[in-house]
Amino acid sequence: MKSEGADRGKVFLIGAGPGDPELLTLKAVRALAQADVVLIDDLVDRRVLEFAPRARVIAVGKRGGCKSTPQAFIERLMVRLARRGKIVARVKGGDPFVFGRGGEEALTLAQAGIACEVIPGITAGISVPAVLGIPVTHRDFAHGVTFVTGHTHAGGGPDWAALARTDTTLVIYMGMKRLPDITTALRAAGMPAETPAAAIQHGTTERQRSVIATLATLADAARDAELGSPALIIIGRVVSLARQVGQAGLRRRTA
Amino acid sequence: MKSEGADRGKVFLIGAGPGDPELLTLKAVRALAQADVVLIDDLVDRRVLEFAPRARVIAVGKRGGCKSTPQAFIERLMVRLARRGKIVARVKGGDPFVFGRGGEEALTLAQAGIACEVIPGITAGISVPAVLGIPVTHRDFAHGVTFVTGHTHAGGGPDWAALARTDTTLVIYMGMKRLPDITTALRAAGMPAETPAAAIQHGTTERQRSVIATLATLADAARDAELGSPALIIIGRVVSLARQVGQAGLRRRTA
Repeated sequence: MKSEGADRGKVFLIGAGPGDPELLTLKAVRALAQADVVLIDDLVDRRVLEFAPRARVIAVGKRGGCKSTPQAFIERLMVRLARRGKIVARVKGGDPFVFGRGGEEALTLAQAGIACEVIPGITAGISVPAVLGIPVTHRDFAHGVTFVTGHTHAGGGPDWAALARTDTTLVIYMGMKRLPDITTALRAAGMPAETPAAAIQHGTTERQRSVIATLATLADAARDAELGSPALIIIGRVVSLARQVGQAGLRRRTA
Repeated sequence: MKSEGADRGKVFLIGAGPGDPELLTLKAVRALAQADVVLIDDLVDRRVLEFAPRARVIAVGKRGGCKSTPQAFIERLMVRLARRGKIVARVKGGDPFVFGRGGEEALTLAQAGIACEVIPGITAGISVPAVLGIPVTHRDFAHGVTFVTGHTHAGGGPDWAALARTDTTLVIYMGMKRLPDITTALRAAGMPAETPAAAIQHGTTERQRSVIATLATLADAARDAELGSPALIIIGRVVSLARQVGQAGLRRRTA
């Protein structure tokens, strides 16, 4: 027999965007207002919790290399709470379906027969370059954009040679530790050494720091600037627009 | 001599998201509230104008094949309005820097010395598949995702053979007219005929319609269903999750 209110239970898988809490969507705000419980990742700005005044908050972050909450535990917790009739807001950085394991969580919920609504978020791969004035596509420079992680599930890396040949802007999530290997692999695949390239740490937040360099110099420049994770790497001719758009226009916004 | 208030003039390049007006960000809402003038694209839901009560509204849409406002005219208009001291909200579908010519607009504004703030939007390439329960990345199925248009600026197409070899999910914007050519090119590049594939028209809106098929059958299935533009094409193993996640979970959200 189901417990009272169990039919009400559901999970919102919410993307909180790249960092700036103002990049939450109206739909996310509405979902947070309904939530009984918020499961929040480490990297999500705590100011988003202001929109969930009635919710119990459980931190379930996973930081690379540090103590973290196992994915299976998070998924079991979501299922258990929803089965008790709770409205659960699972808040993740960026978009839940872009390297966020939201696909796994949605599948687990579906298999458990629990209602789930995915609320997309602004992904870092587009919005973080934008802050520097870099459009990930531009008809004169790149007819597409590819998002990859610096390493794959199996422990290897993406096929950098194939990626180099697509002539799309490359946006690399979680690639800082392997940056020298990545740039070497792309150069070996024939990508020109002078291809513009950037790395941005803590994009869209007050702590944002970045370097703009080339494929040949990015790894050294990022090391010299002591850029670490979480950071995004962008490689492609669109990065050349950072100086033009960035300096003349975007950076004046604080004036 | 500058006219009075000219220093105040600026342009917000705002992404309105894929269709659903609730996918506006808080930052976009705040910018719209300040706007003196809104320049709005055809495909953007007019309900977003409720957030810009004091603004004059100018429709500057560009529909494929129909009467449209030339890009150069839009850019000149933005510059002129900002120079008169107006706060201009340029509202575009999706994200301004993903196939939205926002990069060109930002560059024009920068060259004219006009302050510009880019407000990212939820791109259709991620959020529209999500509505069907398709995560564009999933560690068991795809280690990355590539966004391209069905045709390039020069009139040709992307390098489908190179794209096929990346083993990323392919998300194709503006590809419906060339769908048979695209699927043929991907098969010729060695992508398996049974690769799951989907097309979604008017994603995230009340008019949303979709077909889920395979690389071999998608073009015929979309034609039989009379799917037209604007639509998004998704090709890759993650599409197989649509049935599992979509049926059990996401579609119950209307219950």
